[in-house]
Amino acid sequence: MSAPTPTGQQPMPGRIMSGEMAEQPAVLRRILEEGAPRIRRIAEEIAARGPRFVLLTARGTSDNAALYAKYLVEVVLGKPAGLTSMSTTTAYGARPDLTDCLVVTVSQSGGSPDLVASTRAAREAGAITLAVTNNADSPLAEVSEFHIDVLAGPEKALPATKTYTAELLALYLFVEGLRGGDGGAAKILPELAEQILARQDEVRALAARYRFAERLVLTSRGYGYPTAKEAALKLMETSYIPALSFSGADLLHGPLAMVDNVSPVIAIVTEGKGGEALQPVLDRLRGRGADLVVIGNQASVDAASAGFVLPTEGVAEEVQPILEILPLQMLAYEVTIARGQDPDAPRALAKVTETR
Amino acid sequence: MSAPTPTGQQPMPGRIMSGEMAEQPAVLRRILEEGAPRIRRIAEEIAARGPRFVLLTARGTSDNAALYAKYLVEVVLGKPAGLTSMSTTTAYGARPDLTDCLVVTVSQSGGSPDLVASTRAAREAGAITLAVTNNADSPLAEVSEFHIDVLAGPEKALPATKTYTAELLALYLFVEGLRGGDGGAAKILPELAEQILARQDEVRALAARYRFAERLVLTSRGYGYPTAKEAALKLMETSYIPALSFSGADLLHGPLAMVDNVSPVIAIVTEGKGGEALQPVLDRLRGRGADLVVIGNQASVDAASAGFVLPTEGVAEEVQPILEILPLQMLAYEVTIARGQDPDAPRALAKVTETR
Repeated sequence: MSAPTPTGQQPMPGRIMSGEMAEQPAVLRRILEEGAPRIRRIAEEIAARGPRFVLLTARGTSDNAALYAKYLVEVVLGKPAGLTSMSTTTAYGARPDLTDCLVVTVSQSGGSPDLVASTRAAREAGAITLAVTNNADSPLAEVSEFHIDVLAGPEKALPATKTYTAELLALYLFVEGLRGGDGGAAKILPELAEQILARQDEVRALAARYRFAERLVLTSRGYGYPTAKEAALKLMETSYIPALSFSGADLLHGPLAMVDNVSPVIAIVTEGKGGEALQPVLDRLRGRGADLVVIGNQASVDAASAGFVLPTEGVAEEVQPILEILPLQMLAYEVTIARGQDPDAPRALAKVTETR
Repeated sequence: MSAPTPTGQQPMPGRIMSGEMAEQPAVLRRILEEGAPRIRRIAEEIAARGPRFVLLTARGTSDNAALYAKYLVEVVLGKPAGLTSMSTTTAYGARPDLTDCLVVTVSQSGGSPDLVASTRAAREAGAITLAVTNNADSPLAEVSEFHIDVLAGPEKALPATKTYTAELLALYLFVEGLRGGDGGAAKILPELAEQILARQDEVRALAARYRFAERLVLTSRGYGYPTAKEAALKLMETSYIPALSFSGADLLHGPLAMVDNVSPVIAIVTEGKGGEALQPVLDRLRGRGADLVVIGNQASVDAASAGFVLPTEGVAEEVQPILEILPLQMLAYEVTIARGQDPDAPRALAKVTETR
C-alpha cells in the first residue's frame, strides 16, 4: 500500500481511506437498489422460522455494527438480544442449546477463525445462523445457513469505513424485513451522506481542536451509542489518541470523575428519544466546564462549544447512525493527517485479524 | 465524608476505601456461611421454572459483575445470555416478550430509577426477575420477584470495592445453584483474599510505575475480561487516569495501533483457558515493546516487565476473578494516593447514581 507511484513519489497519506469514505453514498445506493430484495427474502425466510432470541457475534468495527443491530432488534422488533462473548465457545468450549435462537455473525472479511468456529458451533447447537459480510466467498459465509453480502466492494485501507455503514444499512434492512416493514426510512440516506461528505472543510476546522489532544471521551445514548464506540475505535486506530466511549448513563457511574476542562468530550446527539435521554448528561458535562463538541441537530450544536450539524429533519431516529458516523470518520482522518501520520496504514495492524 | 475529625484534622485520604477493601475476606466468609443457603434455595426455585435465556442488567461496577455472570451462564450453565441495553426499555419503551427469560439486575444500592423501571417492565413482560443488591430494602429488591442480598454491609467510599467482590461471589453461588453444583470452589477464597490484601507493599511499588502515566491499557480474555473492565473503571474514577480495557482479541482489531513503548499495559492472565487464549496477545504486546505488567501466576509474571503473582494453584478458573481484582483495587488506591488525590471522594460523583 505504500509502494511508490510511477513518478517515484510516495502516494498521498490517507488516499485509500479517503477514497473509500467517498464511496459510501454509492455503496448505500447499491445496497438499496441491488441488495435489498435479497435481504428481504432472507429476512422473510428467517421470520417464518420464528426465532425468539437474537445473538450477535462480531469483533472490532463489526461489533459496533452488531450493537446497532441489537438496539434495532430490541426496539423495532421487540425481541430480546445479546452480544456473544466469543471466547466462551472458542476457548471454553461452551455449547449452549440454541434452539429458537438466531445467531447473526457480522464480519467485513468473513475470515477470522474464531468467528467461523463460533458460528459453526452455533449452527450445530440448533441456531439459525446468518452471516453478514463483505465477502460472499468467505469461510464465514460458507459455514452459515444464510448470508447477506453488504456489497461494499473491496476495502483496502486498514480503518474500516464503507463496510461499517454498509453493515449498518444491511442490518437495518434485515431487521425491517423480519418485522415486515418496508425499510423506506433508508431511501433518503445516500443523498444526505453525499451532502455530509462534501463538508470536509468544517471537519478540518474541528480536527485542529484535537491535534494535540492527549485523550478524548465520546458519549451518546440509545441508537447513537454504537456511533460513539465506532468513532472511538476509528480515532484510536488512525490517530492513536486514546478515545474512551461511554453510554451517557455509564459515564455518570464513575468515569465522569475523569472529565474536566482539559478532557475534550464529543457527544453524538441522535434526534429522538436517545438524544432526549442524553440531555441530563450534557447538562452535567457543561456544568463541569468540559469542552463539548456535538454531532447532532442545529439546536444541540448551538448549545455546545462547537460541533457538526447533521441533517435530521425527516430522518427516522433508527437510521441516523448511518449518517452520524460520517463526520467522525472524517474527523479521525483529518486529525491523523494533522498529526503527520498515515490513516491508511496504522502501525501494528493487519486487515484480516486472525483471532482464535 | 470529609468532615473534620475530633482533633480538627482532616481524616486520612482513602481511609474509607482502604477500610472497605480490607473487609473483603470477612464479606466473602459471610456470604459463604450465612448467604449461601438462601442463594441456593432461590437458584433451585428458579431452575425449576426452566429459564432458557438469561439477560443481565446493570451499570458501572455492577455491570462488570454482570459480565462475569454472563461468562458463568454461558460456560458453566450452557445457556445463552446477554447484557441488556437498558435505554431500549427506559428511553424507547421496548417491551419484548420475555417468557422463559431470567432477568438478573445487579446493583449495589438497588436505587437507580432506570434499573427499577427496566426490571418492572421485564417482570410485566413475563420474565423471571432476580435482583442482586446490597440493600434488601431497596426499590429494586421490592420490584423483583426474587432477591439476593450480597451482605457486604454499608459501602461509603465512592469507588465500589467490597460490593463488587460480594456480587461476584453471590452470582457464582447462584449459577452453581442453577446447575446443581455445590460451589465448593469458593471455599478457599476468603483465606486467599486475606493473603493478597496483606501484600500492600508490592502494590505500592507497582503504583510508582503509573504515578505519571497519561493513560493505561488493560486487557484479558474470558473470565478475566470483567476484571480488566472493572480495574479500568476503578483507576478512572479514583486516579482519573484514562484507562482503556479491551478483550485481548478486540485489542488486535484496531486499538493495538495505540499501544507502544510509552503506553503501559496491564494484562490479567487467568490461569486456565482464558489465560491460554491470551498468550498470542501477550506475545504481540511484547513484540511491540510494550511495558507489560501481569496480574497472574508466577510464570506469566516472570515473562512480563513486572507484575503481581496471584495464588492460582487449586483455584478453579471461574472463581479467580474474585481474587484478581484485589491487587487492582489496591493499585487504583495507591496510584491515587501517590498523585495526591483522595480515593474516597472522586470529584463529580455521587454514590447512588440516578440515571433514567
